[in-house]
Amino acid sequence: MIQKKLKMGMVGGGSDAFIGAIHRNAAFMDNLIELVCGCFSVNPEISRSSGREYFLPDNRIYTTYQEMFEKEMLLPEEERMDFVTIVTPNKWHFEPAMMALERGFHVVIDKPMTFSLEEAKILQKKVEETGLVLALTHVYSGYPAVKEAKARIAEGKIGKLRRVYVEYTQGWLSKRIEMLGGNNAGWRTDPARTGKAGTMGDVGTHAWHLAEYITGLKVEEVCADLRTFVEGRPVDDDGAALLRFENGVAGVLMATQIATGEANNIRIRVYGEKGGMEWRQMDPNRLILRWEDRPTEELYMGSNEYMSDLALWNTRIPSGHPEGFIEAFANIYRNFALTVLAKKRGEAPDYKILDFPTVADGVRGMQFIETIIASGNDHCNKWCKWIE
Amino acid sequence: MIQKKLKMGMVGGGSDAFIGAIHRNAAFMDNLIELVCGCFSVNPEISRSSGREYFLPDNRIYTTYQEMFEKEMLLPEEERMDFVTIVTPNKWHFEPAMMALERGFHVVIDKPMTFSLEEAKILQKKVEETGLVLALTHVYSGYPAVKEAKARIAEGKIGKLRRVYVEYTQGWLSKRIEMLGGNNAGWRTDPARTGKAGTMGDVGTHAWHLAEYITGLKVEEVCADLRTFVEGRPVDDDGAALLRFENGVAGVLMATQIATGEANNIRIRVYGEKGGMEWRQMDPNRLILRWEDRPTEELYMGSNEYMSDLALWNTRIPSGHPEGFIEAFANIYRNFALTVLAKKRGEAPDYKILDFPTVADGVRGMQFIETIIASGNDHCNKWCKWIE
Amino acid sequence: MIQKKLKMGMVGGGSDAFIGAIHRNAAFMDNLIELVCGCFSVNPEISRSSGREYFLPDNRIYTTYQEMFEKEMLLPEEERMDFVTIVTPNKWHFEPAMMALERGFHVVIDKPMTFSLEEAKILQKKVEETGLVLALTHVYSGYPAVKEAKARIAEGKIGKLRRVYVEYTQGWLSKRIEMLGGNNAGWRTDPARTGKAGTMGDVGTHAWHLAEYITGLKVEEVCADLRTFVEGRPVDDDGAALLRFENGVAGVLMATQIATGEANNIRIRVYGEKGGMEWRQMDPNRLILRWEDRPTEELYMGSNEYMSDLALWNTRIPSGHPEGFIEAFANIYRNFALTVLAKKRGEAPDYKILDFPTVADGVRGMQFIETIIASGNDHCNKWCKWIE
Amino acid sequence: MIQKKLKMGMVGGGSDAFIGAIHRNAAFMDNLIELVCGCFSVNPEISRSSGREYFLPDNRIYTTYQEMFEKEMLLPEEERMDFVTIVTPNKWHFEPAMMALERGFHVVIDKPMTFSLEEAKILQKKVEETGLVLALTHVYSGYPAVKEAKARIAEGKIGKLRRVYVEYTQGWLSKRIEMLGGNNAGWRTDPARTGKAGTMGDVGTHAWHLAEYITGLKVEEVCADLRTFVEGRPVDDDGAALLRFENGVAGVLMATQIATGEANNIRIRVYGEKGGMEWRQMDPNRLILRWEDRPTEELYMGSNEYMSDLALWNTRIPSGHPEGFIEAFANIYRNFALTVLAKKRGEAPDYKILDFPTVADGVRGMQFIETIIASGNDHCNKWCKWIE
Repeated sequence: MIQKKLKMGMVGGGSDAFIGAIHRNAAFMDNLIELVCGCFSVNPEISRSSGREYFLPDNRIYTTYQEMFEKEMLLPEEERMDFVTIVTPNKWHFEPAMMALERGFHVVIDKPMTFSLEEAKILQKKVEETGLVLALTHVYSGYPAVKEAKARIAEGKIGKLRRVYVEYTQGWLSKRIEMLGGNNAGWRTDPARTGKAGTMGDVGTHAWHLAEYITGLKVEEVCADLRTFVEGRPVDDDGAALLRFENGVAGVLMATQIATGEANNIRIRVYGEKGGMEWRQMDPNRLILRWEDRPTEELYMGSNEYMSDLALWNTRIPSGHPEGFIEAFANIYRNFALTVLAKKRGEAPDYKILDFPTVADGVRGMQFIETIIASGNDHCNKWCKWIE
Repeated sequence: MIQKKLKMGMVGGGSDAFIGAIHRNAAFMDNLIELVCGCFSVNPEISRSSGREYFLPDNRIYTTYQEMFEKEMLLPEEERMDFVTIVTPNKWHFEPAMMALERGFHVVIDKPMTFSLEEAKILQKKVEETGLVLALTHVYSGYPAVKEAKARIAEGKIGKLRRVYVEYTQGWLSKRIEMLGGNNAGWRTDPARTGKAGTMGDVGTHAWHLAEYITGLKVEEVCADLRTFVEGRPVDDDGAALLRFENGVAGVLMATQIATGEANNIRIRVYGEKGGMEWRQMDPNRLILRWEDRPTEELYMGSNEYMSDLALWNTRIPSGHPEGFIEAFANIYRNFALTVLAKKRGEAPDYKILDFPTVADGVRGMQFIETIIASGNDHCNKWCKWIE
Repeated sequence: MIQKKLKMGMVGGGSDAFIGAIHRNAAFMDNLIELVCGCFSVNPEISRSSGREYFLPDNRIYTTYQEMFEKEMLLPEEERMDFVTIVTPNKWHFEPAMMALERGFHVVIDKPMTFSLEEAKILQKKVEETGLVLALTHVYSGYPAVKEAKARIAEGKIGKLRRVYVEYTQGWLSKRIEMLGGNNAGWRTDPARTGKAGTMGDVGTHAWHLAEYITGLKVEEVCADLRTFVEGRPVDDDGAALLRFENGVAGVLMATQIATGEANNIRIRVYGEKGGMEWRQMDPNRLILRWEDRPTEELYMGSNEYMSDLALWNTRIPSGHPEGFIEAFANIYRNFALTVLAKKRGEAPDYKILDFPTVADGVRGMQFIETIIASGNDHCNKWCKWIE
Repeated sequence: MIQKKLKMGMVGGGSDAFIGAIHRNAAFMDNLIELVCGCFSVNPEISRSSGREYFLPDNRIYTTYQEMFEKEMLLPEEERMDFVTIVTPNKWHFEPAMMALERGFHVVIDKPMTFSLEEAKILQKKVEETGLVLALTHVYSGYPAVKEAKARIAEGKIGKLRRVYVEYTQGWLSKRIEMLGGNNAGWRTDPARTGKAGTMGDVGTHAWHLAEYITGLKVEEVCADLRTFVEGRPVDDDGAALLRFENGVAGVLMATQIATGEANNIRIRVYGEKGGMEWRQMDPNRLILRWEDRPTEELYMGSNEYMSDLALWNTRIPSGHPEGFIEAFANIYRNFALTVLAKKRGEAPDYKILDFPTVADGVRGMQFIETIIASGNDHCNKWCKWIE
């Protein structure tokens, strides 16, 4: 039986940050997690005021994450944090994650998991050594309709797979807004903080992950054409790739942040011998099923009896009551939390609870970045085997 | 400065109940409220197990709400609950609400506010006497797109209003499932627990409230045709009404729970001399604007610069990241919580925070039920003036 | 076997008129009908230039319809027109239609059929006496998806019917544009030319007809609230009505021409005990089917094997190739033409061919206008029995 | 001034054929063209019965196209056909087209224009020599919304172009239905009749043409991955390609006929520095405009004042009245007919009339096939320069 909420610390996520707030909304929604400490900013003033805004006592608001890990370790188990959520730019994922794992804390981390593939592999090894849990917030795999699609494809409902189209189109980097400051574009377009990929790291990885998650198939080869449309930007801001999955499945991946007017359009279509499926994140509660010989179907998420166990487990409300981005995020947190709590009780969580992205997804995500950059950069586009 | 989270108690909302869970998701999401006590069921076993599941100590899990109010009053202010959320069938709204107010607790209550109009008026008087805050969870008024519509209409963007179509169509009561037990249909179709209206109380009130909220206009006359399509059911399960609003605005209200196949389709359209607006709850992040002389516009919610302050205040994520039902619910809780916290500090909250349904909406909701039943029942349909 | 195309004459439909051109597009599309003569305008110059533009020889371009009927009668059967299409304002429907029937010509006429109910009844009698064919262009009943809906409802696919919502919302009369001249608004808002109803005659009749056509049920009682929102306009420009159909089915009808920004939104929803249906004219190739216990279905028109014979007969292209307004119109012309050609050969057309609106629909349409005006006008709204 | 309708002959298009019927619907709709003769099938019986069904006298129904061209030439100009429409499988486009041009007849022909690129070039030379008109029915460029998109892009409304996504996804060849006979799949999947490309010739060419038509830019390089998913099929039935257009514009083209459940989904998106556009053929009257700094707009086609001259010229009905596939087809016929009629009068048609696909598009279409096959076949995918 669950006795205590899981205790969360944060690295990053000050009151001036967007994604940190989402992590908190998601973590708190299901009443399984409470915030107990954090180092919310490199700016101690912001860290302090943020922590107070989140109702933390001053002694649990830290100035550096090093300090946080050291001091939390010294607290009695009843009090100290169970896990840390890391919501900093990519450059500062690896070090705090390693430090946390070494001190026995579980980790939630935003994608891409690390700055480089090398870091990712070291982190994976550390997770394996420690037996701790690392959750990676590939949020789109948390939507009920995505889970439903995965479950139906796994059951063979649309037959042997053939074709995948996945896209993630945004327009907010259509101009060089990173020069203005005061927005999220700065570090995302700076190779020193974001890594070798721009758009392909920021949103391309989500598209790739969604495709592998839904189909259950791995990409084996990539042929990409990457672009930088906005002059002076040192990383890709647009690209497309032909994909070859296992089992002869063909794919196309489109990712861009310069498609002026697009908001956050991640969308996937998968076709098999018997039918096809479509999901669009901006209308996330609908899953479209297309068939050879009968009308197109639209499943509106909610607790309908014809839905899979996997989707129902990740659904909070009856059909017709839309769930959104924060609920999808919360599904990752809830499954992570229940996994950690089960481990504490020495129990093995069932497959529905374990269905959240882990360090293995993080490593493959970094391999995706390596592969697509190798294939697509510098106008020497060619088919590349997946880089391990 | 905010120093403490607001402390919530619950009446109802055991782990076997649907809407109680939503109230908790919504209350916790924004990290302003914590659950400290509750009487979660008339069944003491369920109350106990539910409270434990919500991580409450046994001494804060109560068997009756009377006991809860008595005991909580005796706790030091630092510990005792600040407000109670009442999520029981309509018949049991009034008594706990009155008791709470009399003991100095603020109240959140689900709609319709009470079992009868008389109760509603007494409750309103009590709220006025005590100066406490009562929030009514007309959730649909919490959606950012609904706020945006309200703000734009108030600014005259679509000109002097003329026409309103509002509907709330569901199909889940298409058969007499209340006879099966184990679902929410039982009390909703039982006049002894739900009151004199069935569908018109359960969903008609939401449609009416949405129309008055968005337009800022009051209904003055109603001409209704109410139906009971499912044999043996003692309350209306379907109905439609012609409406006359202030200022000569004409309306139609459609509410049904026997529209087989409809999930939770609450939708509104408003037309003025210069343009029209449409919002549909099952695709809640879009607001459609239609114009006389230029293309139709679609606003996708999110923190876009062209959105109103009212909508932005109630928005958590950038455009393209859908928010849903729980976030709309959470907006009511957040605004309620900030209002109570401001009161505690002796401050006056601004209009954006005060924008949540209150006891006055609750009284008008009960008047709506009286009026539509008077107009529509017994096949003696006629135009009725609003019953005060 | 078909040997000759059917020969069409026109009253109205000069090159300055909108709906006349549509009639011609529709009549010619299927290669069953050719234009042989016409009196295209009260202005002889326009009639002449229009006829020439339509490739007619000067001796078949007439100055008055009286002249046309007289002279055509004298031509050999091989040459003279078989039928006349009347596309004048309502005031000038009856006289040419009577004259045509009396001289043995079949008739196609736009809706509403006549200026008054009295005229309609006389016309009906004349049709019955002569045994000639009169087709009324209630175009929306010509769409394949509407046919499909009708066929499925007749087969009981959605069970015993309960609820109908039908609407026809436009915004083009949002201002008093009839004062500008040079548009179609002039006669439509002039009681001397349009009859006693404005919007209810112009678009309300279409909505009513669509509802009776799809459900196969007759309206028995009406309770309407009619409005004139644009100052100075002598007819209704907006209205809504509660409807009672046969068999206890309840309905709502909404018709307006002042819903600013709406183009030509005619839309219907019908619910039965087992399912519901929805069709929207502005996306006319889709029919939505909703079900109690399985996902919503979308039928995209086209020659799919799961479509009804009635719809397939009225479909020209495989699924995915949209048909539109002109094709719906053409379905009426084609069925009319095949009926007349069958009569000429002494054959009885099958039910699919006979499925077009006739004089009987025209009479009921005028009764609809009488009834809704009696119920809705002068703010003395009340339930009215259907006026026969 | 127009004095006579244009007289059409047909090669192919018997009553058992799908696309021939569409050509006739489209040709006749606007009352500019009449059918005077044809050789409708290689089967003389079908040719005969078809011609009679189309109301032709027996002496104008021919057994071979050679006979048709010879005999028609001998008729007086007043009587003989002006142009021939060729709607046979690709293998039999070239010969009748050449024969027609050599005898002075204008030509309408379905795409792809010929069986091989060589034939296309010879045909182009012949058109240039004779000064006759050849129209190629790339129907999707005939839709008003596509014209509107082209006009706005040409005016720079969305700024300098960057990105194009174009797709044409169908599912009807998901199984090897060509083995069943009695359908259109037979010749389309037979290299001896269809040419070297299957899906890329049948629908890929449409997608490519739509992209060049809307953007006004030419493709310069292609990198394709072509597939044959259905075992035993001797041509491609699926493929995707990265495209490089002039001016550094990047593109993706997706074409498939094995996307089970897709009907006829041709869809394009184009993004520039200031905005983006989207058009979907299955909802063809809407054009979506997306913007950097203001809400998404939806233009619903029809005679709205804010539409371009190019679109208005190709529009028959006011906004809200959907036009479809046949109207798009008819726009090509109408513009072709007006061009020929203008030539007859010695006049130069204006740019709006001349805006239909010609022999030059046909040559580029065959080059597209050459290029994509060269790039995509045999798993030796690579970037290919456009093959001239």
